[in-house]
Amino acid sequence: MKSKQLGNGTVLVFDVGDEVVSTLTTFAKDRQISAAHFTAIGAFSDTSIGYFDWEKKDYLKNQVNEQVEVVSLVGDIALDGGNPKVHAHVVVGRKDGTTRGGHLLEAHVRPTLELVLQESGGQLKRKFDQESGLALIDLSQT
Amino acid sequence: MKSKQLGNGTVLVFDVGDEVVSTLTTFAKDRQISAAHFTAIGAFSDTSIGYFDWEKKDYLKNQVNEQVEVVSLVGDIALDGGNPKVHAHVVVGRKDGTTRGGHLLEAHVRPTLELVLQESGGQLKRKFDQESGLALIDLSQT
Amino acid sequence: MKSKQLGNGTVLVFDVGDEVVSTLTTFAKDRQISAAHFTAIGAFSDTSIGYFDWEKKDYLKNQVNEQVEVVSLVGDIALDGGNPKVHAHVVVGRKDGTTRGGHLLEAHVRPTLELVLQESGGQLKRKFDQESGLALIDLSQT
Repeated sequence: MKSKQLGNGTVLVFDVGDEVVSTLTTFAKDRQISAAHFTAIGAFSDTSIGYFDWEKKDYLKNQVNEQVEVVSLVGDIALDGGNPKVHAHVVVGRKDGTTRGGHLLEAHVRPTLELVLQESGGQLKRKFDQESGLALIDLSQT
Repeated sequence: MKSKQLGNGTVLVFDVGDEVVSTLTTFAKDRQISAAHFTAIGAFSDTSIGYFDWEKKDYLKNQVNEQVEVVSLVGDIALDGGNPKVHAHVVVGRKDGTTRGGHLLEAHVRPTLELVLQESGGQLKRKFDQESGLALIDLSQT
Repeated sequence: MKSKQLGNGTVLVFDVGDEVVSTLTTFAKDRQISAAHFTAIGAFSDTSIGYFDWEKKDYLKNQVNEQVEVVSLVGDIALDGGNPKVHAHVVVGRKDGTTRGGHLLEAHVRPTLELVLQESGGQLKRKFDQESGLALIDLSQT
């Protein structure tokens, strides 16, 4: 993955084989990003998509083991326990044009992912939420 | 719903049960927002999705009465008859990873919706369009 | 298509019958845009969606010959051989709420497309990539 500051945003271009969530998390840690949002398009060779099961309070996994277009990737970065955490949702387009979508658990880029990241200034912080069992953004903390 | 100004954007975090369109419209009225765009991710407990039927010149409704991931929510705010009007399109991801999408008529958040809103400065105004029967953004007005 | 500068962004409102990729490319050439990203919502009367076949190193075409909601349109503009090139991915919502998505090859607007474009400052350049056979954004060039 290569990145470049452009105006008040940053463009990240991922390489073949890059895992998106871990690569973006490492980037956010290195840059000490505490609040940001992003959009991206590109293509993946395999994608692991999550669905939050409200009854089970856990993520189910839908695996897409084929080359897909990344037709929408929208997400944000906020601090969770002091460290930047990436939260992203994805829609992928298959060979026949049908789509799959959900919470991005893991995905490998092929051949590229073009991501535009906008730092917000200030901080966003997550806090464990008893009812859902998830770490939600808590605006009262910051 | 809680909101926080961060740099030149605003982050809105919706709570369980919040209806998105009405909550965002109220926010826009309170802040007198006359031009903005936004993206969001999160999850809904139920979603009412519209499809504009070009022959009937009316919205058909597709109801998704199940917990879904909000995989893409993109929209804008413009003035319609002097009041801010929210226009948003949504893609939701179901338990099996399949998706549904269309014009966001109504949806209830569960457990969260993380929305980043960017005010544009200036004004956007809608005007009734005879051919479609819809109020479209009219850039010649402003 | 009409456009208007609003703050540090530009709003483009497309008219009935406008072809999106060519209209946006012409706009980018006229304004000499060398780096930008955008999101849009609206509706199309017909849409030509591409899927990059990794084995064939070529785009397959999925044609959607019906009125659809444009539920997500995300893209960027970068220089390719000195000229601005539009790269956009789209998700469309059909009458029954199901979706189709992929690389936007061509689409005609009906009745409107509301696009918010953000110029990044600086330049993004594409370069032919041997492995994929595509012109990918090359951040080392700029």
